[in-house]
Amino acid sequence: MTLPSTKPGRLITFEGIDGAGKSTHIAACADWLRSLGLTVVLSREPGGTALAEAIRNQFLTQACDPQTEALLAFAARSDHLARVIRPALARGDWVVLDRFTDSTAAYQGGGRGLGVDRIAALEAWVHGDLQPDRTYLFDLDPEEAARRRAQAREADRFEAEDVVFFGRVRQAYLARMAAAPARIVKLDAGQPPDAVRAALMADLAANLAPLARLGS
Amino acid sequence: MTLPSTKPGRLITFEGIDGAGKSTHIAACADWLRSLGLTVVLSREPGGTALAEAIRNQFLTQACDPQTEALLAFAARSDHLARVIRPALARGDWVVLDRFTDSTAAYQGGGRGLGVDRIAALEAWVHGDLQPDRTYLFDLDPEEAARRRAQAREADRFEAEDVVFFGRVRQAYLARMAAAPARIVKLDAGQPPDAVRAALMADLAANLAPLARLGS
Repeated sequence: MTLPSTKPGRLITFEGIDGAGKSTHIAACADWLRSLGLTVVLSREPGGTALAEAIRNQFLTQACDPQTEALLAFAARSDHLARVIRPALARGDWVVLDRFTDSTAAYQGGGRGLGVDRIAALEAWVHGDLQPDRTYLFDLDPEEAARRRAQAREADRFEAEDVVFFGRVRQAYLARMAAAPARIVKLDAGQPPDAVRAALMADLAANLAPLARLGS
Repeated sequence: MTLPSTKPGRLITFEGIDGAGKSTHIAACADWLRSLGLTVVLSREPGGTALAEAIRNQFLTQACDPQTEALLAFAARSDHLARVIRPALARGDWVVLDRFTDSTAAYQGGGRGLGVDRIAALEAWVHGDLQPDRTYLFDLDPEEAARRRAQAREADRFEAEDVVFFGRVRQAYLARMAAAPARIVKLDAGQPPDAVRAALMADLAANLAPLARLGS
């Protein structure tokens, strides 16, 4: 249907505090990209490779200090980049990720207090040459996110944190957005799901569909 | 016997290519320090905590790219520093390690070709404030080390590398020594074990015994 791609693929990431509801919209994004004839690689972080999933398991169950948490997140990411993300982009595939480095900046840099600057230094070391083409930040009041999580699932080690923690995570996300306004798009996750989806789809159509046509 | 320490403890590390014979001398060093009335914490890297030993297992059995290897080594090290090394030094204990960051510089920076400068940047991020007080580098011709390993044990993923790899590891060790001549002491591991031990004990007596007396 489409000619072989003559340009590298694109990287789209989804971000937000636990309970913001992003997971329900990621599949819709992937479906929409596939409907354009694109090959989509859907993955998550921490995870996406055998090694990274093993680290994810450590990460979500074993307490450690913030610096070690950040190094574990980037070790998993480095393997994911080497085995999955970079090869997919080189083939011309579109990669859609549930969390990427903005999560490390928000959770370890903001939530755990390591500082966004220290995360930025590690980010430059690990993937200084690569940034997402578009990032959707599902922004939500931490109190509302806590109510949603309580109804939805058993908490992991991060989800069990209090609203003060998630307030710091949210602020770090907004700081990342202020530093990269052309990349990170904020979606008001306090709206009904249909409205969030409409806003997401409108941005995809306006900003990513032209790139998809260029690549086909 | 000794008064409470009024100063922090000391960190002594042992380095060298696989097969250089350092392991047989580390216990002797710890015994000698204990004979001075010091409390000694003996540990190894990667390892020394439950998390770091889990990473060690990944590290020695699962292939990954050099950047991921370096991040895993430093994630393990960060946990080891937070849970074991820094608390021990703060108590006034002496910490003796079988491998530390010089190994990452030598194996991932040199052997795997990541570059010693990239390892130095990560080292500064993880423990820019802390360096060993003394490092013993067991230096040996890679051909001789390979002969010794063949007689001694089954090879892990690193030990199975060829002499060209270990030649790069050795050169990176020597580059680290050139950059830190006051810290890193080269021992000629091609000598008979008794001669190596005599050289090690002479340096310990001359350079570390005075520090031990200061701390008691």
